[in-house]
Amino acid sequence: MRVTAYAAHRASAPLEEYTYEAGPLGDRQVDIRVTHCGVCHTDLGMIDNEFGNARFPVVAGHEVVGEVAAIGAAVDPDRLPVGVRVGLGAIAGSCFRCEWCVGGRQQHCPDRDDLVLRGDRGGFARHVRAGDWRHVHPIPEAIPSAAAGPLLCAGTTVFAPLLRHGVRPTDRVGVVGIGGLGHLAVQFFAAWGCAVTAISSSPGKEDDARRFGATGYLVGRDEAAMGAAAGSFDFLLSTVAADLPWDAYLALLRPAGTLSVVGVPPAPLTVGPMALLPSAKTISGGIPGSIGDTRAMLDFAARHGVRPEVEVFPVADNAAALDRVRSGRARYRAVLEL
Amino acid sequence: MRVTAYAAHRASAPLEEYTYEAGPLGDRQVDIRVTHCGVCHTDLGMIDNEFGNARFPVVAGHEVVGEVAAIGAAVDPDRLPVGVRVGLGAIAGSCFRCEWCVGGRQQHCPDRDDLVLRGDRGGFARHVRAGDWRHVHPIPEAIPSAAAGPLLCAGTTVFAPLLRHGVRPTDRVGVVGIGGLGHLAVQFFAAWGCAVTAISSSPGKEDDARRFGATGYLVGRDEAAMGAAAGSFDFLLSTVAADLPWDAYLALLRPAGTLSVVGVPPAPLTVGPMALLPSAKTISGGIPGSIGDTRAMLDFAARHGVRPEVEVFPVADNAAALDRVRSGRARYRAVLEL
Repeated sequence: MRVTAYAAHRASAPLEEYTYEAGPLGDRQVDIRVTHCGVCHTDLGMIDNEFGNARFPVVAGHEVVGEVAAIGAAVDPDRLPVGVRVGLGAIAGSCFRCEWCVGGRQQHCPDRDDLVLRGDRGGFARHVRAGDWRHVHPIPEAIPSAAAGPLLCAGTTVFAPLLRHGVRPTDRVGVVGIGGLGHLAVQFFAAWGCAVTAISSSPGKEDDARRFGATGYLVGRDEAAMGAAAGSFDFLLSTVAADLPWDAYLALLRPAGTLSVVGVPPAPLTVGPMALLPSAKTISGGIPGSIGDTRAMLDFAARHGVRPEVEVFPVADNAAALDRVRSGRARYRAVLEL
Repeated sequence: MRVTAYAAHRASAPLEEYTYEAGPLGDRQVDIRVTHCGVCHTDLGMIDNEFGNARFPVVAGHEVVGEVAAIGAAVDPDRLPVGVRVGLGAIAGSCFRCEWCVGGRQQHCPDRDDLVLRGDRGGFARHVRAGDWRHVHPIPEAIPSAAAGPLLCAGTTVFAPLLRHGVRPTDRVGVVGIGGLGHLAVQFFAAWGCAVTAISSSPGKEDDARRFGATGYLVGRDEAAMGAAAGSFDFLLSTVAADLPWDAYLALLRPAGTLSVVGVPPAPLTVGPMALLPSAKTISGGIPGSIGDTRAMLDFAARHGVRPEVEVFPVADNAAALDRVRSGRARYRAVLEL
């Protein structure tokens, strides 16, 4: 199949129409006709070659929604029939042989098909090919296609820590950063039953945060407010790509609390031993969840009305969409419509 | 009661006999006639005023073994009769009113009686007074008095992470530092059923580590060996008071693995985001466990023959004992006999 895609031909270049030959469909593979694709910060990271590993032309996009166009010979057609509405996230395939795959934690498979870091045949395209059909997720009917995309990367990234760290509905939690990830995290934590405080660098997002379900709001730069909130959270989720004063955030936690970091800061994290040890606190890195986590997240989002707020751009206006994300002005996630 | 103790009258001074008046025994308090007291690195920290909070004269010592000399009016005499052999660790009392105490996690009580940081009426003495009788632990018969002391601080510090992080007997674990804490950790992890690798700065402790139950040995400075061991541990426990190359140690972990830090490094921990996030790893600070943890540890140690290796010094030779610990030459824990 000949695929029409939207590629950056050099770092930070505007996307241009670009076609490539996808080759024969493998037994376990699935072709998806793309209808929508969310724009994630890491897509900009690849297009702008921020990680230094981009090979141009870059076709980014890993928050894909569309319908199944073709399935390989080994795909179960009852579970994934042609024509069904599906989503594809950051992991497009894995080996299904290693201990991580057979143990249900495919996100750790060393041979996973990483749609982000691969950066060559992503979802900013008319079609995308998934490496293994089991990573192609049917979308619950309640979730509109334009809203489904951001759930597949941003959604699972903020939802997986809830499962992994055993967050309980009785917990008081804080979400650091009210952007593409954070505005979903506030909704998920509120639906989970937690008392949620949004923590933002500026006071400007308070109304939005409360609309998403936050019952508290903290401005991170307000040292007095941060000091007053010391020791008040069981769990903190940092969604920002920024170098935080980590000890000050650890101080917000109650004893034995956990800071889960899912936004990638530019510099190393620096943590004072006295911020971590005497109260037995934890810092944990997070990534998108497993297949099981992702399907649980989609079902939970459908049942609880968790939806990203999206600005939809026709693919012809992709430059505007990318600019919204690059400048941090997306409210709260940009989505391309194909 | 007039207590005869061994005090440092200024930073790093030799201990001298010193007496103080303990005053009337409170309702929940217990006086212990000390027979043995372990020497922990944090005792030197107080005596040498390393933490900057010492008020002299300092009477250190928080790995106390002895027998109950007197009990307050509110103490249950059936559970803690006068004359019974007991131990007292780093936490000598807590409020038993706060959520942490009533929740069974007394180590987080904000009003806990911290025998280490208090540093004024510790176990380097003929008698010591515990703030609350429930923190005074009967010693299982199988554990000799000279060996029991180090279990009460070092033992519970390395044992509590096993409980807290749900370490399983199928896990492959590494113990960083084979000293007072580490030599107990290797024994506990081996008795727990884990495959244990000892990680030391030098090759000199390999025979000892294997005798304690390690089946693997890594020299931390051997970059080739460290590289070859990448991704091979589910759990790492760092017991050293040193600034490790944290990313290199995180690299030893398998995906989703945990590095538990119970030794206090002098400088902040520095962790690259790429060492933590993509494989969803965790760094967690640890402290001595709860009352329940400590009693489970004592029972487990008794059943499995976990014993510190101790060098026993008469209290008159305390200078020699302190020197062994200060210089890092204790094999593996110095204990004062009173």
